[in-house]
Amino acid sequence: MAGLIPLSNQVSAGEIKITGALVHHVFFWLNEPENKEHLKQLLDGLNQLIKVETIKMSHIGLPASTEERDVVDHSYSVSYIAFFDSKEDQDIYQTHPIHLKFVEENSNLWNKVVVYDSTDI
Amino acid sequence: MAGLIPLSNQVSAGEIKITGALVHHVFFWLNEPENKEHLKQLLDGLNQLIKVETIKMSHIGLPASTEERDVVDHSYSVSYIAFFDSKEDQDIYQTHPIHLKFVEENSNLWNKVVVYDSTDI
Repeated sequence: MAGLIPLSNQVSAGEIKITGALVHHVFFWLNEPENKEHLKQLLDGLNQLIKVETIKMSHIGLPASTEERDVVDHSYSVSYIAFFDSKEDQDIYQTHPIHLKFVEENSNLWNKVVVYDSTDI
Repeated sequence: MAGLIPLSNQVSAGEIKITGALVHHVFFWLNEPENKEHLKQLLDGLNQLIKVETIKMSHIGLPASTEERDVVDHSYSVSYIAFFDSKEDQDIYQTHPIHLKFVEENSNLWNKVVVYDSTDI
């Protein structure tokens, strides 16, 4: 099944704790943060990237207008999260043709990327 | 419903893109990264924290043993993600008694916290 899952439809109430996942969270800082075409290109590229079949779940976002606090980093341009079932599935993704194409076509847009990989496995 | 959701059971195959969410991702750096009791205390605290009712989905993890690359930050101790339906639900969480208790009881454990809030709303 492919599709958009509104969070509020996916989980009706209460506490849902995801387990058995490798979470790959990437933050991009655009060279030209105010350039709407660059932002659109990156978002379009990410929407292609999430078609890699080992990605079980994903989220693509922009900085939220939450409270300005010292510990909160709102400076990035785009947030991208991919959930995998395992480290092995993330390894497949890293060298997947769709991923390589994404990097080749879009890496000129950003000057900084930070990646956090975390797991409960 | 409260419970643990193995990622592989939650989504059977293909592309699931979460929408309508505010994603609150927090990274903790412990004062004593090798202290297993401190790590356990923080993980236990987070497992209480995710009971805040406005949290729709969560993930608690440790750095994954993914490839060492310049862009990948494996230096943190604990990763914690909470998914909310809205900025308003995240605001409720910030001042929720369970959250205030978590900070009061555990903030002595860490020397650095970085928070990223992102949204597709």
